[in-house]
Amino acid sequence: MPLSRTVRCTCIKISIRPINPRYLEKLEIIPASHSCPHAEIIATMKKKGEKRCLNPESKAIKNLLKAVRKERSKRSP
Amino acid sequence: MPLSRTVRCTCIKISIRPINPRYLEKLEIIPASHSCPHAEIIATMKKKGEKRCLNPESKAIKNLLKAVRKERSKRSP
Repeated sequence: MPLSRTVRCTCIKISIRPINPRYLEKLEIIPASHSCPHAEIIATMKKKGEKRCLNPESKAIKNLLKAVRKERSKRSP
Repeated sequence: MPLSRTVRCTCIKISIRPINPRYLEKLEIIPASHSCPHAEIIATMKKKGEKRCLNPESKAIKNLLKAVRKERSKRSP
């Protein structure tokens, strides 16, 4: 009899509030695995290091990833 | 006289080897900030937790992000 696998996703609740890239410290993307059957995206905010889970399949995330990847610091020369 | 700002990017060298999403533990995306003028993407591999820095503006990263976000565990029902 196979051992039952426990699902251990990091995210319990998905935030639907939009994320402003300016207040974002980092984004973590965790692919689907044995312990969690779907990908997870965790945003860490600059303010107090608050963590928010986002829906990996949403269009907002697609745009956020694009914005973060391409944005350059406005203060750099 | 303003204090000089030190650039402290996490990545020193960018890996050009392609990443297989199956061996990826997580991806971290760090937006441009005061300490580093460009976005950084750090891939942590399952094997030994090896970390690799990737080019945020490459097409390969765009595809990797898409694959990771949409992939579901083959073992889930």
